[in-house]
This record gives sequence, C-alpha cells and structure tokens, in this order.
Amino acid sequence: QSSNSTSTLSDNMSLRVPPPQSLREALKVPDRYMFGPGPSNVPPRILEAGARPVIGHMHPEIFEIMSDIKSGIQYLFQTQNKMTFAVSGTGHSAMECAIFNTVEPGDSVLTAVNGIWGERAAEMAERIGGRVNAIVAPPGGIFTNEDIEKALSKHRPALFFLAHGESSTGVLHPLDGIGQLCHKYNCLFLVDSVASMGGSPLHMDQQEIDILYTGSQKVLNAPPGTAPISFSERACRKTKPLSFFLDFNWLTNYWGCDDKPTRVYHHTGPVTAFYSLRESLAVLCEEGLEASWERHRTVAEYFHAGLENIGLKLFVKDKQVRLPTVTTIIAPHGYDWKEITSYIMRTHNLEISGGLGPSAGLVLRVGLMGCNSSRTNVDMVLSALTDALQHCHRSKV
Amino acid sequence: QSSNSTSTLSDNMSLRVPPPQSLREALKVPDRYMFGPGPSNVPPRILEAGARPVIGHMHPEIFEIMSDIKSGIQYLFQTQNKMTFAVSGTGHSAMECAIFNTVEPGDSVLTAVNGIWGERAAEMAERIGGRVNAIVAPPGGIFTNEDIEKALSKHRPALFFLAHGESSTGVLHPLDGIGQLCHKYNCLFLVDSVASMGGSPLHMDQQEIDILYTGSQKVLNAPPGTAPISFSERACRKTKPLSFFLDFNWLTNYWGCDDKPTRVYHHTGPVTAFYSLRESLAVLCEEGLEASWERHRTVAEYFHAGLENIGLKLFVKDKQVRLPTVTTIIAPHGYDWKEITSYIMRTHNLEISGGLGPSAGLVLRVGLMGCNSSRTNVDMVLSALTDALQHCHRSKV
Repeated sequence: QSSNSTSTLSDNMSLRVPPPQSLREALKVPDRYMFGPGPSNVPPRILEAGARPVIGHMHPEIFEIMSDIKSGIQYLFQTQNKMTFAVSGTGHSAMECAIFNTVEPGDSVLTAVNGIWGERAAEMAERIGGRVNAIVAPPGGIFTNEDIEKALSKHRPALFFLAHGESSTGVLHPLDGIGQLCHKYNCLFLVDSVASMGGSPLHMDQQEIDILYTGSQKVLNAPPGTAPISFSERACRKTKPLSFFLDFNWLTNYWGCDDKPTRVYHHTGPVTAFYSLRESLAVLCEEGLEASWERHRTVAEYFHAGLENIGLKLFVKDKQVRLPTVTTIIAPHGYDWKEITSYIMRTHNLEISGGLGPSAGLVLRVGLMGCNSSRTNVDMVLSALTDALQHCHRSKV
Repeated sequence: QSSNSTSTLSDNMSLRVPPPQSLREALKVPDRYMFGPGPSNVPPRILEAGARPVIGHMHPEIFEIMSDIKSGIQYLFQTQNKMTFAVSGTGHSAMECAIFNTVEPGDSVLTAVNGIWGERAAEMAERIGGRVNAIVAPPGGIFTNEDIEKALSKHRPALFFLAHGESSTGVLHPLDGIGQLCHKYNCLFLVDSVASMGGSPLHMDQQEIDILYTGSQKVLNAPPGTAPISFSERACRKTKPLSFFLDFNWLTNYWGCDDKPTRVYHHTGPVTAFYSLRESLAVLCEEGLEASWERHRTVAEYFHAGLENIGLKLFVKDKQVRLPTVTTIIAPHGYDWKEITSYIMRTHNLEISGGLGPSAGLVLRVGLMGCNSSRTNVDMVLSALTDALQHCHRSKV
C-alpha cells in the first residue's frame, strides 16, 4: 500500500518548470578556422564517422573497433605496452587517470612546472594526498637533465611529471635520457603529450616513458572527448585507486588489455567518440608518423620565418625547443592582444588565442595541428595578423 | 647544448611499431534495433547535430549552447537549481561527480541496494573514505519509507543514495516523502535516474532531491558521453573534492552557473557531444515531459500485457513499481537465456540483453526508451521473442 499511496502523491504534482523557449530554435554552429591551441578543425571524414549509428558498448563490433584504436595508439605512441587504451574523457581525465593510478596518499611526487600543465598535475596529486615538489622554470624555459637529476635525487619521488608539449608557452621539452634518470631513482616517468603527439617525434618505449597520454582534439583532428593513454609494465596499478571511473584495472579489462577471459561491464563507453577516434588514427596511419612529424616541422619553420618577416617575435628563443604544433608569439608591443584576436575572429573567421596561465597577457598562440598544418593555412594566418596589426589600435609608446 | 645533443639522440631513433593493418580497412558499424537497457537508438536528427563543425570550448556560441542545455535539463528534472549542468562523461562519471562532491573521508553514507547501482554507489563512497552502510532488498524489491527512516535514524548519514530506475532489476522506486525524511535527519538525498529520466514522472524540487543525474543515451536518445546533473543549494560543495576533473566549483563556473563575471578554462568540453545533447533535449521539449511519461507508461503496459499473452512472466510482481523504460522478464524456464538473446540478435538484428549484477542469469531485459518506446517496436520484440521460444533449445524438465 505504501507504493500505491506514494504514486498517487506524485501523480498529482504538476509541472512547475516550463520548456525553455530557447530550445525551440534550431541549433546554430558556426564553421570557422580553428587555429587556436585546440580543439582543431575536424575533417568531414572524421565527423561522419562519429555520426554512424550507435551500437552497444559491449557488442563484439565495438570491441573490434576498440582493438583497432588500441593498435593505432600503440603505433602513435611507439609502444608495445599491452595496457594501452583511451579514457572516456578529455585530456584532463587522462591526466587524472594517470595520477590516480600511480600516486598513493603520502607518496612523493615531482612535477616540472614551466607552464600551466605542471601546475595542474601538481594540483591533482596534492588533492589525493601526494607530497608534491616542483622544479620551476620561467614560462618558455626548459629543464636540463642535470636539473632533473638533482631534484630526483633530493625528493626521491614515486612519480615525475613533465609536459612534452607545453601548449601554454609553446615549448617542446626534450625527453631523451629523462626516463633513464627516473628509473635510476626508481621513479615513474609521466609525460603529457596532449599538444605534441603526432606532431613531433616521441618514442614511448625507447625513451622509457612509463605513462603517456594525449587528447583526441589536437593533431588527431577528432572531436574532444577521448584521450589515448598507455602504461608501461612498471606503472601497472596493483591496488584500488580512489576513483572507480578511472580505475586502471577496470578500464584495462573493458579494453581487453588484461588476460581475463571475459570483459565485465564498467561504464558505457562513448561509442560514437570511439568511431571518430578510430577514423582519426586511420588518417594518421595513412600519412605515416614520420611524414606527419616532418610536415609539422617544416610548416612550423615556414610559419616562424613568416612571423619574423612581418616584424613579430617568437616567445621561445631557442629554435630547438619550439613546439611545432602551437606557436607562441610575443604580444605585439603597444597593442591590446584581445583586440587582435577579436579582430581576426570577426574579420577572418579564424581563431587564434591569447596566453594561458603563466603566459596570459604575454603572448598570442596559434595552433596548426594535424590537417591544419599546411603552408596555405600559414599564409592565411600571416595575412590575418598583418591585417590586424594595421587595423587595431596602437598606443603611442 | 644539452637540448641540441638530446634532439640528435631521438632524431636517430627509428620507428619500431608499424602502423596496424586493421586500420587500413574502413570503419564498419552495423545498424541494429537497440532494445537493450541502453544505449538506445539515436535518431538521424540527433546524430547529425553531433556531426556539426567543432568550435572552441570557450567560444560564446558554445556557452549559448551550454545555456540551452542547462535550461533543458532544468525542465527535464523539474528544478530551478542554478547548479545544473552536464558532466563530460557517462552516467558513472556523474555518479562519481555527485559522490566526490558530497562525501568527505569519514562521512557516514547510506545506500539503498536493490540492484547493481546501489552497490556501485557504495563502492565509490568507500573508495574515498566514506563509512558506508546499506539497506538491502532482494533484486526486484523496494524499500518502504519506514525502512528508510529507520536506517537514517540509525546511521545518521550525510548522504543517502537511491536509484529511481533500477535498470538491472526493472524497478521504478517510489520517491515521495523520502527527500523530506532525509532532510528531517539532515542528510542529502542523491537519486540516480539514468534509466528512468524522461520516461517516468519525477519532480526534483517538489520531491526535495538534492543531487540528481541521468545519462544521455537512454530516454534522451543521444550518444553516450554526457551526463546531466543538478545540485540543490543544500548540496553545494564548499571544499575541494579529491578530483580536479569533477570539481563542483570548477564545473559550475565553466557552465556559467556561479555568479562570477568570467569563466576560467577548466577542461576542454566535448563540444560535439554538447550539440547532440542539446538536440535531444529539444526533441523532448517538443513532445513535452508529460506526454513522454504517458507514452512510456502506456507502451510499457501494452508490452507487459503482450509478454503475459505469450506465456512469459514479469520479474517485478508489483505493477506500481515496474520501470516503464526497462522491462525485466523472468528467464524462460528450460532455456539458456544467452541462446535467446543471441538468436534474436542474429535473426532479428535486435538487441535485448540478459541480467546484470544481482539479476544476472535470472532475467531478460528489454529497453524501449525515448523514440524506441512505441507499439510498433513492442510488436517487433514480441514477435522476436515468440520466434526465439520456438527455435531455441528447450531442455525437457
């Protein structure tokens, strides 16, 4: 009777919140050049893949697709790690997945902070009780292997975080020898390659990286929403992390990475996002990793020379450590950077962005990633910048 | 020189993992009737919305779309809560978002376990140090308000979890009066409506629910990957949760729910998933909530009568607490349930599923959600079941 009387009660409740007027209007989405630090443009082929019919998150066909994705990531990362999959979320979920599964409360953690990503990794590790120390370089700077070894030896961390592509400052950090140093000090080496992966050489296994992740929406040109990740054997979690959703053991079982005969329902994978991720990996395989690296390198050099030609200055002085995917330009003297980005968006339908975190106010950022990395696009950006410098207000300094 | 010498090193590394052969083949996705417990079929209109061009996660146009989504969720949930948004993840992320932001280590947590969802909520709360107690009913059963009050009074929890739609057992749990009981005991009321939302009456504000979430892939008929959630004022988090990605204060700022003048970059929202979520909410607004509830109710009654006509028995005895979106059928005596679901998939291109968690092996589950809830589809399922019962092996018992 209890259930009878209660149904009567709620049956008599009437709607108090009306349907919003705004949803009667059709969805409006502008089509623009996405030349900021990401997301970048998604080619029709990849958008169409994501619009295929939804199937079940435990159907054999999706397991096949997930297996293709896994192989594609192994190629992209240059790794033979069994524990390779995609997190059902954006780069930040992958960062959290990496940290939740490798840091226990009380563990010493070392982060390299030369932009926003090291700060965010530090914040995540602190929240779960890590004892976090940081080595700090000014925005645009890098760390020598000597700097890193000194800190490893002093803090004896369980985990060392480094961003390969520091998209907030435009730095591509050298990786050689750091994995070996970490292992000398019995420390796991965690690398964020969200902004660099596919656009710059990286060899996960040869460079002894233990945990590596990226995002779908940069060089891969898929929509944001999935994040490739891989764990070396050394990094494989044995105990339960704080999060069920990001639990390494559950996730690797869902992705068929472990040796168990059956997969147990963990969460409902975003199947259509898996379709577009698979397609984006197929595009990358068609071009080939080395060709993609080379294209990003030569287009970036062409871009950087063009910027200097029109009188702009690059924020990262050392050519060797310039990120080819995201270029930071010193905010032109005498201009309001916001007026420049707004003018270019309004007049050229083209996104470039300002700084982020420690580079806010200091730089303009231009991302040319994946299919966007071409000389034609460079010319378009250079002409938009030239136009903006002519038309935006300049203070007399 | 350090950076020069290291670049040389990795420049000489060659690729050791070749591109996988499997990615040379085109993506293959079957089109089938998705009549399991979810994901359900996504109509072309919603798939097409998700294939619109990618824009920035901080562009004014995406903030507009997010604002439409927020209003649509307020209507769907029947709430005026300012703190209403969508988690960038599936239902499990929303469950974790709710628990991470309301439970502190050492807090007493009470979960109602009458299927898998109460177990998962308990597991999540335990992982972050909650002292979890459960009230337990057999699969298919419910709790009276007296049961619940007794447990609230005994355990004095900070949070009480209840699944409105228990999709593993096919139970629709009555909600009336429970919010009021929770508040009498100074406890937050958390409700999982992943399987029920939009298919069965629910009034978040009038029923005094403090945290409510659902998924995109059930009645809403959007692809899996976003999860609407809302917090009452009572439930608003003041302190930092363990997760940065699921931090209430960051998320509500990104969604423009707080009173701050600017939005700070938190994570890259899955913009194309927001497009399809907006479209699915627009579809629901066009039909109207009450019409959708009524359609799901009458179609479910028609289905249940049809099942009894062909000699099948419903797992949930009490008609009042049968979930109209997901129907549990007692696994037919003498048959192997797996043979039935495989036969129907193979012969009719139609997914129905077996049990989950405590109902595994006991039931068949059929979901008719959103656009799938129609008499035509019921007739299709009934004829597939009739066919399967004729053609699958039956042991002589």
